[in-house]
Amino acid sequence: MTQTPSETDLTAKPRIALLGLGAMGAAFARTWLAAGYPLTVWNRTPSRAEPLAAEGADVAATAAEAVASARLVVTCLLDDASVGEALAGADLTGRDLVDVTTGTPAQARARSEWAAGRGARFLSGGIMAIPPMVGVPEAGGYVFYSGPSEVFEEHRAALAVPAGTVYAGRDAGLASLQDVALLSAMNGMFAGVAHAFALVRNEEVPLGEFAGHLSAWLVAMASEGVRLTARQLESGDYTTGVVSNLAMQVEGNATLLRTAEEQGVSTELLTPYADLMARRLADGHGDEDGAGVVDLLAAPRR
Amino acid sequence: MTQTPSETDLTAKPRIALLGLGAMGAAFARTWLAAGYPLTVWNRTPSRAEPLAAEGADVAATAAEAVASARLVVTCLLDDASVGEALAGADLTGRDLVDVTTGTPAQARARSEWAAGRGARFLSGGIMAIPPMVGVPEAGGYVFYSGPSEVFEEHRAALAVPAGTVYAGRDAGLASLQDVALLSAMNGMFAGVAHAFALVRNEEVPLGEFAGHLSAWLVAMASEGVRLTARQLESGDYTTGVVSNLAMQVEGNATLLRTAEEQGVSTELLTPYADLMARRLADGHGDEDGAGVVDLLAAPRR
Repeated sequence: MTQTPSETDLTAKPRIALLGLGAMGAAFARTWLAAGYPLTVWNRTPSRAEPLAAEGADVAATAAEAVASARLVVTCLLDDASVGEALAGADLTGRDLVDVTTGTPAQARARSEWAAGRGARFLSGGIMAIPPMVGVPEAGGYVFYSGPSEVFEEHRAALAVPAGTVYAGRDAGLASLQDVALLSAMNGMFAGVAHAFALVRNEEVPLGEFAGHLSAWLVAMASEGVRLTARQLESGDYTTGVVSNLAMQVEGNATLLRTAEEQGVSTELLTPYADLMARRLADGHGDEDGAGVVDLLAAPRR
Repeated sequence: MTQTPSETDLTAKPRIALLGLGAMGAAFARTWLAAGYPLTVWNRTPSRAEPLAAEGADVAATAAEAVASARLVVTCLLDDASVGEALAGADLTGRDLVDVTTGTPAQARARSEWAAGRGARFLSGGIMAIPPMVGVPEAGGYVFYSGPSEVFEEHRAALAVPAGTVYAGRDAGLASLQDVALLSAMNGMFAGVAHAFALVRNEEVPLGEFAGHLSAWLVAMASEGVRLTARQLESGDYTTGVVSNLAMQVEGNATLLRTAEEQGVSTELLTPYADLMARRLADGHGDEDGAGVVDLLAAPRR
């Protein structure tokens, strides 16, 4: 438990201290152990560390002890407040703190300042994976990391063991921001999927076959539509590449809403987006694509 | 203009009458002409037929004349009311009417009854393609067709020329229903995408790179999540295959909502789905997946 980076020889892998052994933390731990990284683990409920000790991890009695054992300290805890609590009594001087705990961009930015005040460099991580995807490269999971690029580069090899890595920018908030953005978009998609299943579930539609069509359609639209929206927002010209303009889309929405009513399905998941599209059309943007809805949610500042 | 199916020899392709030469109708027409189908076209505004006449189509002066020319009559008009108007003076006896006009399931069911009362068999089509995808098999566009399977089978070869065909069931409403369901899910996805771009647009995030991550994430989630939801709805057990249960998802939603507020982005596109998830959790379904939201939109009847 007293091994420090200076004790390791140059060919050995550097020790990692991991705080937090929930499903995600434990999955990270196992990949580092399997890859030969010396690992110190700590968890508030000590029993969760036992299986990892059997797999070769060193178990620290306190978070401070874990932090003392390694230059690279990874926190994977319940929430940002838990990070502050766990590290309250630890000496972070000279440590590189990589926090993959779920949180908001503002929390990551504040935690970065907090770490700097305690002599530590800081990376924030946003995990785009679920525990079963960790350590399974073909599952495609990855982690957004934001903070100083030199800290990211220094630890990139170790960080790349559990999942892919994507550098999200120097601003510590950008990993969490992009993580939340992707999850928000996914929620929108699953809201639409829930509505779609509600429409067909009580009809003579084989759900498995329908799911195949639905999945393929969303895959096709996600591939094309998302990149087109990015190009439109970057150029500021929302008529670029328009296939079905806003006027036509709003007309189509009437059929979607009417169908939901006919089928006795609540329209509550459809109306907010339809309303924004109608508002944008009323503002005189009928020849544009739907990208202008982004302006209604957050006006461009640059 | 007086050629009827009985005049064609057995090796020749049967004549098709197409009513409606908007972007979609014209695209359909061109694929049939290119494939060697004799084609009669009619459009309310006659000038739209001129380019097709130059490509070999026979132009009918009236819809009734077009209908008289072929056993297979395809309507691709503005809306269901336009179909009724266009065909008001036509003799539909012995005709097979295939209506690919956008409409609701109830409109398709009523139009099917209407056609039967006029001596015609009826298929309703729901087009999952945009005009540039028509006649381009690798673009993956297709049309849902519903109505009697024997009518579908009889005309399948001709219907497969413009785009792929998927038989959606005997109930005439099912093509439109599945079409609308897929478009509704797509709208949900694009609502989520709009929110995601609103979150990052004013930050130091390269939009093109972000779009790549967002697109890949949605593709991955659509592939897995949609099929899982179908299995859960079919079995009635919403705990099957749960990775992140509703309690965890609702906790995650708090981070999504808080991030939107921090970034000054309206939460209006996030809250309806988050509210339904919270309601389902409050009803005691925290260990389930999000599939239970479908029950809140439309209770299962079977």
